[in-house]
This record gives sequence, structure tokens and C-alpha cells, in this order.
Amino acid sequence: MPVNFTHATEESLLPISGIQLWTAEAGIKKINRSDLCCFQLDQGVAVSGVFTQNRFCAAPVQICQKRLAANGQAIRALVINTGNANAGTGVAGQADALRVTAAVADLWQLAPESVLPFSTGVILEPLPVDKIVQGLTQLRPASYLEAAKAIMTTDTVPKACSRQLVLDGVTVTITGISKGSGMINPNMATMLGFVATDAAIAPMVLNHMMHEIAEVSFNAITVDGDTSTNDSFLLMATAKAKHALIDSVEHALYEPMKAALIEVAQFLAHAIVRDGEGASKFIAITVEGGKTVIDCKKIAYAIAHSPLVKTAFFASDPNLGRILAAIGYANVDVDVYDLSLYLDEVLVAEKGGRAASYQEADGQRVLSKSDIEIRVVLEVGEAKTTVWTCDLSHDYVSINADYRS
Amino acid sequence: MPVNFTHATEESLLPISGIQLWTAEAGIKKINRSDLCCFQLDQGVAVSGVFTQNRFCAAPVQICQKRLAANGQAIRALVINTGNANAGTGVAGQADALRVTAAVADLWQLAPESVLPFSTGVILEPLPVDKIVQGLTQLRPASYLEAAKAIMTTDTVPKACSRQLVLDGVTVTITGISKGSGMINPNMATMLGFVATDAAIAPMVLNHMMHEIAEVSFNAITVDGDTSTNDSFLLMATAKAKHALIDSVEHALYEPMKAALIEVAQFLAHAIVRDGEGASKFIAITVEGGKTVIDCKKIAYAIAHSPLVKTAFFASDPNLGRILAAIGYANVDVDVYDLSLYLDEVLVAEKGGRAASYQEADGQRVLSKSDIEIRVVLEVGEAKTTVWTCDLSHDYVSINADYRS
Repeated sequence: MPVNFTHATEESLLPISGIQLWTAEAGIKKINRSDLCCFQLDQGVAVSGVFTQNRFCAAPVQICQKRLAANGQAIRALVINTGNANAGTGVAGQADALRVTAAVADLWQLAPESVLPFSTGVILEPLPVDKIVQGLTQLRPASYLEAAKAIMTTDTVPKACSRQLVLDGVTVTITGISKGSGMINPNMATMLGFVATDAAIAPMVLNHMMHEIAEVSFNAITVDGDTSTNDSFLLMATAKAKHALIDSVEHALYEPMKAALIEVAQFLAHAIVRDGEGASKFIAITVEGGKTVIDCKKIAYAIAHSPLVKTAFFASDPNLGRILAAIGYANVDVDVYDLSLYLDEVLVAEKGGRAASYQEADGQRVLSKSDIEIRVVLEVGEAKTTVWTCDLSHDYVSINADYRS
Repeated sequence: MPVNFTHATEESLLPISGIQLWTAEAGIKKINRSDLCCFQLDQGVAVSGVFTQNRFCAAPVQICQKRLAANGQAIRALVINTGNANAGTGVAGQADALRVTAAVADLWQLAPESVLPFSTGVILEPLPVDKIVQGLTQLRPASYLEAAKAIMTTDTVPKACSRQLVLDGVTVTITGISKGSGMINPNMATMLGFVATDAAIAPMVLNHMMHEIAEVSFNAITVDGDTSTNDSFLLMATAKAKHALIDSVEHALYEPMKAALIEVAQFLAHAIVRDGEGASKFIAITVEGGKTVIDCKKIAYAIAHSPLVKTAFFASDPNLGRILAAIGYANVDVDVYDLSLYLDEVLVAEKGGRAASYQEADGQRVLSKSDIEIRVVLEVGEAKTTVWTCDLSHDYVSINADYRS
């Protein structure tokens, strides 16, 4: 079970005007389960995406990047398959992905370049294009919950949420789904996020907003430090809500809209960590008082990636020197005699050593919780960041060692 | 049990003229075991050291660095305790380490600055100086095997070896000991290496040689990617062997001497990986054909640190896409369509995808071995490097989660 996870229900997930979802059982890897999902978009939906930085990025990622760069307003459909990542498939993988998007374009009479492909699953194996094309003929209208289920791989729960806000007296709706249970899950099953809103946001503004949102959500989580070949996060704004178009980053509605999208994106990103392979604890790591956000992120990720820190949290063992050691090798110019370390509200270390007030019982009490904050306070600037991760458990090793066996 | 480890015996370990070893039971953390070890050096021994880059480096490391920088030829003694790392101990930790070195200086009538302290064990706790000072009065002459046992913490075997070579018709002896079973072991128990030789090497030349040796031995291994607060590697040359002094890097004896020291240092460094916490496989990762050694190391360490690669090796599962993904996020400018990946002699991937000749049975056969080479061949230069690591097993999590419980 995921750590303190809020389950979505059919009732809690609101449709987004301008977008129709479809799912099918294509039998790509397993039978009797939905493994194919399509988003069908009305004309004029603004679409923005961020993708894995991995140089071995999969064929579908390369196609998405190219098509979004050419015209983010021309996108009319997304096609997502599980069971095969179409990664490490060389030139043939490109042709396979293009065949799938062409089939979707045929189905709905769209320009081939208006379809974005997404794949997640096993890598180094050819995409079973015929099964997918056949599956497209079986598509049935689907809810967001059904779509969230169709994109699952080793996820133990579907991940989805909705939120509404009022802009200029007009109700605006946001609904998103995500999947992933390791940054790469055993078989590169990948982190995917799709967030849709009926808000009216100009494409250039959406792109700008997108990067601010990704930075504090999908780009601020880690399960095992591995970066998948297929990670993708897509933001869609249909402009069906009749508030004033958000046409600049200075627009009065920009900040409230961004804040609501961040809430949804963070919920979906946190859900991936809470469902992290073998996770038993959800850990927020905040670094503040740094010179730059990059410095703060380096320290936060050094802590988040340390197997020693992660196993200590799994064991609820306040072996806190491991956190200090991780700060020390983060490759940031910090004066270790000038920082403070907190576990929730408990001051653990300062002036290069254990705080005089620190009692191991206090550390033990915090470590016994399932949601924990590690806070590092530097004293060299104003920058601040938070990343989220989970612990490293026996089950992580089991899931990743046994997956293909 | 360590992976394919060659055990040292009393007979296989040769004394080094100019150095006397001592051990004692100081009862620092446990009773009835040696936990204190001293090296007593004749005058004129050249000493060179490399230390952790961790900014939280322990008090003894700071003192070693200062004293070696002041005069590497004035060192007359080393004092090494287990059971407490004297790290994360702030200003008091410095004073404690100085009290210990002063006690050694008193004992042997040496200048206080001529003693180097080393500590390994729990961090964030004050060094039990009184016990150590009391222990110094109990020192008994010891062999290298006894010394190797005295510096163990969670190590399952003592790590030591000797080697001889003939320089200018004169027999030269090298003997070394090491400890460590994670780069940081659960309690920061640290990687320590001490290599002694009776060769005659000028101090400046020894310093130069030291960095070349460390780069391909102690600086080329990783168990879990964590870098301890106390890691130290010391090289001592007593000049008792009567060959011509190696007084320049162009000296004819420089390369054969360096090669022999590398053999010993690599044995000791590999022994740490073979005894890695929970290790069941010893993995050499070679990256060749790179633009620079730094690029090659980045790729090699990205593979070596990937929990997904390490768990796949634990499971003997040829889930080789995980290696490609790690290469992809190593942050090196490589063309993924232009590299080849081998497991031992088996070509696994090329041209961005699985090699046409690759059969999963071949991958499976290699993965079933306990010593495995991963080889990445780039085609952009002449640089090459190798790093060594182990797999990630259930036992790693158990050892690190349960250590303090």
C-alpha cells in the first residue's frame, strides 16, 4: 500500500470540457486489462510538455518533442500504451511510433503530426505495433479513473485528482492522472503525468507556467535516482472556461492559476513517491538559506539519493550522521559549522556536531512517523527548495530483483 | 562471505623494515577485541596521504591533512581506533584527537605533530579519549594480520596482502592493510587503507605516485555511492631497501615501483568491494574510447551507482536496458547510436538498440557468474577507465537498516 495516499474515486474526478478520453484492451503484454489510452482534444487546445533529459530517450519522446516544438497548438490526440516502452529500439523504434500515431490520425481524420505518442513498459524490445493498431479499433469512451488505470504498470493504485477554482467569477476545473512507482521502475515503466484544464491560457504563457510547475512537482521527486528513458509530463489547456485569456506572465490570473496547477501536479508527483517501490515512508527534504536554488537542490538530492539515509529511515533509526555526510559530499560550498539540521521541529545538529538539546528519543519519535520532513538551514542566502522521496526497503530490492524472473 | 576473496595468512604477510606495528584492546565500543592499532615509523620515512572530499570530514582527517602538508617526512606514528569516528563532533572533536596524538607522542617521546590520528566507527558521539589513552598503555607488538583485524568494523574478513619485486637487483617489499565494507558503512565505519614499502622514494615523488595509485584503486571503487567523513589512504616508504633513490617521475624505477604499488592498492580496494555489505557479485565497469577520463568515470559511476542496475545483477537478470539508461543520464555528451555495450565478451547493444547477435541466454550466462565485466565502448577518443562495484542485495538493506537497532 502507498504511504498515506488519498484515493481518487469516479465522483471526485471531474471531466474537462474539450477533451474526450478513450481506453482499450490491446493485449500488448497481458490480456484482460486496459493497456491503451487516448486523449482526443478539440481544436485550439494549448499543449506543453517536459520530458526526460536521458540521452537514451525513447522514440516516442523524440517524436513528442519534435511535434510540440513545431506547433503546440496543433495537437489533437495523445496515444499512450503500457507493456512496451519503445526505448533502446534504434531507428526501427521511430518508424514503429510513427505507425501508431498515423493509425490514430486515420481513425479520427487528423493530421499525423497532430498526434503525440507515449509508451511505457519493457525496453530493448520492438513495439508490437499490430496489436496497438488493432487495439485502437476497440477504443471505448473512458473516465479519468479508467484512464489512470489504463496507464498503470507496477503501480499499486491509480493516481488521479481534480481541483476547481474560480477565476473572474468563472469556475475553472483541473484534472490530472499520473503513473510511475520508481523514477525508472523495474522495466523502465517510467513516470508519466497528464494534467488537463479548461482554463484559457495562451500557448507561450502555458510553456512558461509549465516549467515553473514541473520544477516544484515532477522535477522535484525521486525514488531511486534513476532517470527513465520515457519520463513525460504534459499540460493541456482547452480554453473552454470563459474567463479572460491569461495572455502574459504578468496577468492577474497567472499566479492563482499556476498555484492551482501546482497543487494538482504536486499531488500527482507525490502519489508516485508514496507508491514508490517498497516505500514505507514519505520524506520531504527542504533546504533553505542557500546561495542558489541549484545549490539547495544538490544538497536535497544528495540526501534523497543516499542509500544509507534511505535504509536508516526504513528502519526508523535516527542514524542522523548519514544526513550530515550526504550534505558534506553534495559538492556545494557550505560551511559545515554554520548549518542546522532539523527532523520535523526537532533540532538535530548545528555547529558541525550534535545539538546540545538533541535527545535520541526525539529523533526516534519523528522517525517512527510515515510522513517526515528533513530540513537543512544554511546561512548564506535566501534560496530554498523542497524535494520528495521515500525510504529504501527490502521490498524495493525484491521488486527490482524479481520483476523479470 | 566476500565474493571470490583471497585470504591473507600470517605467512603471506611480510614485515616492512623501518615500521613496527602495535595493537591493543581499549574497550572503545566492545570488549575482548583489538580496537586500537599503531604504526611506529623510523625517522625519515616518506609519508603521503589522500583523504575524503566530504566537507563534513572528521577531526582526525583534518589533523592528518594539516600535519602532512606541513612536513610529510616528519611523521613518526599513526594511531587508529575503531568504535568511534570522531566525526560530526565539532570543535571538541579536534581537541579530543589532539589529546590522543599527544598521548602517543608522550609514549614514544615524539613531537606531537609527528603523530597522525585515524578513527572509524559511530559518528556524532564524543571520542572516548580516556579509554584510548588507557589502551595505549596496553599496546603489544603486532603482525600485519593482527593490525588488519584491529581496524575492522563491519568487515567480515581482515584485508591485507604483500608483494615483492626486484629493483636494481634489490628485493623490495610492499605490505598493505585496508578496511571498509561500504563507502560509508552503516556507522560511517569508513574506508581506510595503509600501504607500506621499504622502497626508497623521494617525498615529492611519492606524493605524485600516490595520486596516480589512488586514482585507479581506492578512488575507483564504490559500494553505495556514499562518501564517508573519514576515508583515508596512506602510503609509507621507509627507504630501507638499498636500490637507487627514486627521485623523479622520470626515474627508470618509477614505473615498475608504481605498478607494484598499484597491484597492492587494487587488491586492498577490491577486497573492500568484494566484502561490500551484502555483496554477492564483483563487477568491473570499463568505459573506453571516451574524450576524457572524467567523461569515462562519469559514465562508469552512473552505472555503478544505479540501484536498478545493482538489483538486476543481484538477481542475475540481464535487464540490460537499465545500463543503457544509466549511460543516458550520466551527463556526458555521447551519441547513443554510436556506442557498444558488452557483458564480458558478449556484445549486448549497439546503434541505440539491442545487438542483432545478442541472445538473452548469453547475457544470462555471464550474469550467473560472480565476477563480471561491463564494458562500454564509445567512439569519440582514446580515454579509458575502470571502476569496481558490487550488487545491491537484500542483505545490504538488512545490514544498513538493522545495524543500530
